Amino acid sequence: MYPTLSKKKATCIRQLALKKYRLEQAAFVLEGKKSIQALLSARYAIKCIVGTSSFFVANQDIVASIRKETEVFETKKEVLSGLGSFVHNHEVLAVAAIPSATEPSISPVDITLALDGIQDPGNLGTIIRIADWYGIATILCSQTTVELYNPKVLQASMGSFAKVNLHYVDLPRYLEGLKLPILGATLDGQPVHDFAFPGHGVLVIGNESHGIQPAVKAILTEAIAIPRYGQANSLNAATATAILCDNWRRLCRYGK
Amino acid sequence: MYPTLSKKKATCIRQLALKKYRLEQAAFVLEGKKSIQALLSARYAIKCIVGTSSFFVANQDIVASIRKETEVFETKKEVLSGLGSFVHNHEVLAVAAIPSATEPSISPVDITLALDGIQDPGNLGTIIRIADWYGIATILCSQTTVELYNPKVLQASMGSFAKVNLHYVDLPRYLEGLKLPILGATLDGQPVHDFAFPGHGVLVIGNESHGIQPAVKAILTEAIAIPRYGQANSLNAATATAILCDNWRRLCRYGK
Repeated sequence: MYPTLSKKKATCIRQLALKKYRLEQAAFVLEGKKSIQALLSARYAIKCIVGTSSFFVANQDIVASIRKETEVFETKKEVLSGLGSFVHNHEVLAVAAIPSATEPSISPVDITLALDGIQDPGNLGTIIRIADWYGIATILCSQTTVELYNPKVLQASMGSFAKVNLHYVDLPRYLEGLKLPILGATLDGQPVHDFAFPGHGVLVIGNESHGIQPAVKAILTEAIAIPRYGQANSLNAATATAILCDNWRRLCRYGK
Repeated sequence: MYPTLSKKKATCIRQLALKKYRLEQAAFVLEGKKSIQALLSARYAIKCIVGTSSFFVANQDIVASIRKETEVFETKKEVLSGLGSFVHNHEVLAVAAIPSATEPSISPVDITLALDGIQDPGNLGTIIRIADWYGIATILCSQTTVELYNPKVLQASMGSFAKVNLHYVDLPRYLEGLKLPILGATLDGQPVHDFAFPGHGVLVIGNESHGIQPAVKAILTEAIAIPRYGQANSLNAATATAILCDNWRRLCRYGK
């Protein structure tokens, strides 16, 4: 039905597992049916789709939504699972163009997230999914935050990467220019269960080990903390993000 | 200072990466300084500790707290990182005895967690850490829940595995026997921001893909849900646990 994937093309795809080649080719790989469905319904230009013949037969809806400019290749299961980063992907993958960077658009009346040096790809992906759940449109990332197109980030985001806008910026400088409340998640801030959240603003989440960098700490309008009832020293960064978003949203929307 | 690790002993330790051998030897491996500190301050019997000579020199406090019955071996960095599951562990690991199973002790006046088929080791570890943060003493696990002594579970728990009691039980039967409110996390339950949480009870978290099994669903006293403000289809199981614990604790303790 579709042409077979050439060896040269296969090599190009395999290279995209590394950031160096992603930047060079301005492209990234996305694996699995659900992620590709998210990609097809979003703004990304899809360069090519590689699938097994049985995948194409079983997923006519996906086939129907492939645009003309996308190349489609067929390959065997064994070849496919060697192309990407996840051994359990035996069905389909896509190569999409990395969109060129745009200026962040920060809603002055809603919540924005800012990530200051999140390193773990699973954490970044999970945070993107949380932002999508809580209707947070924009995430600002420091340049030290892990890259969005890392396969583990995309995977953990469960398709939400296509619905939330991420921007890598000079974080202290950018936040300083915003005339908004800047709340920072810390271990010793004001307990959020009693905190009078503003109606809008930015929530800053720091690095997994070192927290928020001093230059960003200096421009926080408030430091907030999740009340602890037990003994753990800390919470995972994505877990903390979720709890803080939940606390902020319940107050913003309901005025409780 | 300490005897060198024998090849036979090294093989035994490497085998413990597999569940089969963990059950056979009734032992598990714990990697890294922080995890071992947690182990030393808890009820576990430590069979042996293997470290580099520089680790022992730099960590006299740990050396001082090693009990007499624990064998201690020295080895090279390269050997050490090949013994465990994490390539970044170049310092120290311990082999501890798996404690024999005990009957769960459920506080009738506090919150207990129940996990119904959590599969991802990272999720289980993160949930244990969350339980420790929120002062939840006991986690009931269905027999289909991933094993506590899986290296990735222990790692993700950040030492909290030693402070929270996990029990693997026939979950539907066990819950049925409890005369407590049994709340289940679902996508279509009552929104927790408006929910009148009871003062005590059990919170059930289902499997990552299939949710709560029908036999457990049938005995829930309430189904609850996390309000969604955006578009994501769901939240990660550990993320959802954290948000629900936060919602329950704020109400239990403060009566808000």
